[in-house]
Amino acid sequence: MSKLTDPLIQQSIEQLKKYIALPSVSAKQQAQPETAKFLEQLLTEFGAEVSVWNDYDVPCVFASAKPEKPSDTTILIYDHYDVQPEEPLELWESDPFELQVTSDKFIGRGASDCKGDLISRIAALNLYRQEHGDLPCNIKFLIEGAEEVASQHLEDYLKLHQNELSADMVIWESGFKNEHEQFGFNGGTKGVLCFELEAISANADLHSSYAAVVDSATWRLTQALNALRDKDGRILIPGFYDDVVEPSEREKALVAQTIEPDLKEALGLTTPLLKNKSVNYNLTFEPTINIEGLSSGWEGQGVKTVTPKLAKAKLEFRLVPDQDPHDLFKKLTDYLNNQGFEDIKVSYLLGEKGYRWDLDSPIVNTLIDTAKDYFGGEDKVEILPSSPETGPMYLVNKYSQAPIVACGVSYSKAGNHASNENIRIQDYLDFIDFFDEFLGKIVKE
Amino acid sequence: MSKLTDPLIQQSIEQLKKYIALPSVSAKQQAQPETAKFLEQLLTEFGAEVSVWNDYDVPCVFASAKPEKPSDTTILIYDHYDVQPEEPLELWESDPFELQVTSDKFIGRGASDCKGDLISRIAALNLYRQEHGDLPCNIKFLIEGAEEVASQHLEDYLKLHQNELSADMVIWESGFKNEHEQFGFNGGTKGVLCFELEAISANADLHSSYAAVVDSATWRLTQALNALRDKDGRILIPGFYDDVVEPSEREKALVAQTIEPDLKEALGLTTPLLKNKSVNYNLTFEPTINIEGLSSGWEGQGVKTVTPKLAKAKLEFRLVPDQDPHDLFKKLTDYLNNQGFEDIKVSYLLGEKGYRWDLDSPIVNTLIDTAKDYFGGEDKVEILPSSPETGPMYLVNKYSQAPIVACGVSYSKAGNHASNENIRIQDYLDFIDFFDEFLGKIVKE
Repeated sequence: MSKLTDPLIQQSIEQLKKYIALPSVSAKQQAQPETAKFLEQLLTEFGAEVSVWNDYDVPCVFASAKPEKPSDTTILIYDHYDVQPEEPLELWESDPFELQVTSDKFIGRGASDCKGDLISRIAALNLYRQEHGDLPCNIKFLIEGAEEVASQHLEDYLKLHQNELSADMVIWESGFKNEHEQFGFNGGTKGVLCFELEAISANADLHSSYAAVVDSATWRLTQALNALRDKDGRILIPGFYDDVVEPSEREKALVAQTIEPDLKEALGLTTPLLKNKSVNYNLTFEPTINIEGLSSGWEGQGVKTVTPKLAKAKLEFRLVPDQDPHDLFKKLTDYLNNQGFEDIKVSYLLGEKGYRWDLDSPIVNTLIDTAKDYFGGEDKVEILPSSPETGPMYLVNKYSQAPIVACGVSYSKAGNHASNENIRIQDYLDFIDFFDEFLGKIVKE
Repeated sequence: MSKLTDPLIQQSIEQLKKYIALPSVSAKQQAQPETAKFLEQLLTEFGAEVSVWNDYDVPCVFASAKPEKPSDTTILIYDHYDVQPEEPLELWESDPFELQVTSDKFIGRGASDCKGDLISRIAALNLYRQEHGDLPCNIKFLIEGAEEVASQHLEDYLKLHQNELSADMVIWESGFKNEHEQFGFNGGTKGVLCFELEAISANADLHSSYAAVVDSATWRLTQALNALRDKDGRILIPGFYDDVVEPSEREKALVAQTIEPDLKEALGLTTPLLKNKSVNYNLTFEPTINIEGLSSGWEGQGVKTVTPKLAKAKLEFRLVPDQDPHDLFKKLTDYLNNQGFEDIKVSYLLGEKGYRWDLDSPIVNTLIDTAKDYFGGEDKVEILPSSPETGPMYLVNKYSQAPIVACGVSYSKAGNHASNENIRIQDYLDFIDFFDEFLGKIVKE
């Protein structure tokens, strides 16, 4: 078992410290070239051949390392070096860009999402090499710098370099132990379509006495919103569900084995959950509609007797395979027009397709079996065919043609995207040992 | 005919200049005592006995002047000395608190709403006295300092001083020539009920992947809003219309004689008008529901994948006689509860009852007939039983027991509450002459 005092672990913590010190906030286009340079050096020292792709404004790091004894197995490690903005700063108990090592935690922006993941994977590979004198197989790294801003230009990079991406398995950036301390695997990310509705009803905000005759932007918007969803959360756009691939029996069985979360308690919900087969079923398999924000007229203190000329809503659909964001955007606009909302402007903000699979392949089965052994049994592992969240898995699968599985060093209280982001040191050490064990099993004798 | 060069007009312009120079913005609780003091001096010089009521934080000015020859007719002039905030300053072409006298306009904050009204009424009384050596009847002035902030404490003042308020007619603060150059009279103000809806769905904003199972504050709010009004603008709360007093035949006839405005063109409307008998009918007689503002979640640039925990809407009803804001607030909350919206918090912000009458009394008929003569015929005058706007007419009528009529020096492009507020000098001079003529007709020989 790895210990905090092992020189190899000490070295990896030093690497994590330097990595977290780089404030690579993609939303602010901050420190991206420096961070790519840091990774270039880190992976060169690891022994990989490194390219920093610079064809678009955000550099993308690609690296490839081969064992001395040739292998026909390739693992592609996908990660991202960018992080979410650190604000609000006042909620942090320490400098977000200075790694804190407490008695049981690593704290800092990116510790969980996902600088800790990359460094732990490298540490596991180094541990394996220290034990066996060689790498277990071919290893590729694909580390983008814009995941937190919808993986801008990732597809352009993948298209340019598609010949270099083939692999047998992709280890995805993130993974965590859930609130029941089950080590999680998942094989998908939902797609997304973000769009904006904008109602404009007049030249200027009107004195609200005109509400006796004028239909305002605000009413038009709320009517349009209500036309999109029924009270149970079902989306009312004709054809919205046409391309939804029904989950397979195995996928359903995987979800049926998971422990249902008590969201009502955990999130402090005041209203009943939407109609659903089960919470985990919906989170895994159902597309969604969500209003991210609303804005119109007077939002300050007290009253202002105004009939707003403008009302805006930002919305998103989370998509599942094989829904296509451009196709759904067309169905959405057609539907609003057919419902008499021609006056409402609909704008496409961003879209991404979803990816999902049943995690059934020899190498992934080996990975999962290793976890069951390592963490203490079947019930210490959670296997989900998809995360409810969104990421560029669809693209990476499309260009690598490799099945993808996510797992990592995080846990249910890591605070991704929030203040005091952290991971537990024990999870970090466990991941290194578990992954080292897995690597031992894939080497063909 | 009065001319700009007449010493009496010159004096009144000097008074208006000093009055406008006092930045009496009630929303900022600014210059209220100084302005009350200015009025105390002005009305004392006019020859009235003046009291500055100081029982509550905003002083209210009351004054009473009697003719030497006793009269049993009393006119109460209601006005307010407070004005709207001058912001945004960059839209003003001159200092808002420095009266600009151009070739045809008086420009400054309060020129139209309603410092110009008070000064013109005093000028007309002075003109009458210059011509006839005495006042025409008893004159009372009631000048509050908080009309622009819902006449805070006006009822308290009126209750305290109700014995001093009796009159035969109240001349109300505002009045204007419409876009067809008709001199306007109106006999009412709508009531109002402002309230806030607040939906809270969780402890914190959630990652929007939870939209697969969680019903958000934003959806709850839009559903509740849609339950309040149908597409034609009709309010769906049971009992909402119960206390609405149907307009009398004479009231309807008055409105039928007015010229319908072309709102679609004037306001740049993008959607059809709501179902209505006529624009002026609805503006005069129909209660309304209006959303003043909406606010929830992410309102910035781009996307933020959040399911908001909180969504807020500010709304208002405009009321007509005899609707009572407290009664309607109860009906509103009962209705929302009955519709399953117990989770939505409803807060009462402010309320005021409406007032309306058919402008049929001997003294008001004299006033209107004088205007018809002065301005050139029946079709040069517009008579409406109510303004679509809100003001404390109900209260002033309740405590004075006098019918109320509004008329004044303004016009359709005065820009009340906006930048470059102005009146036309000719309207100002005309009002003085017209009102002087009217005063001549009410003196009992």
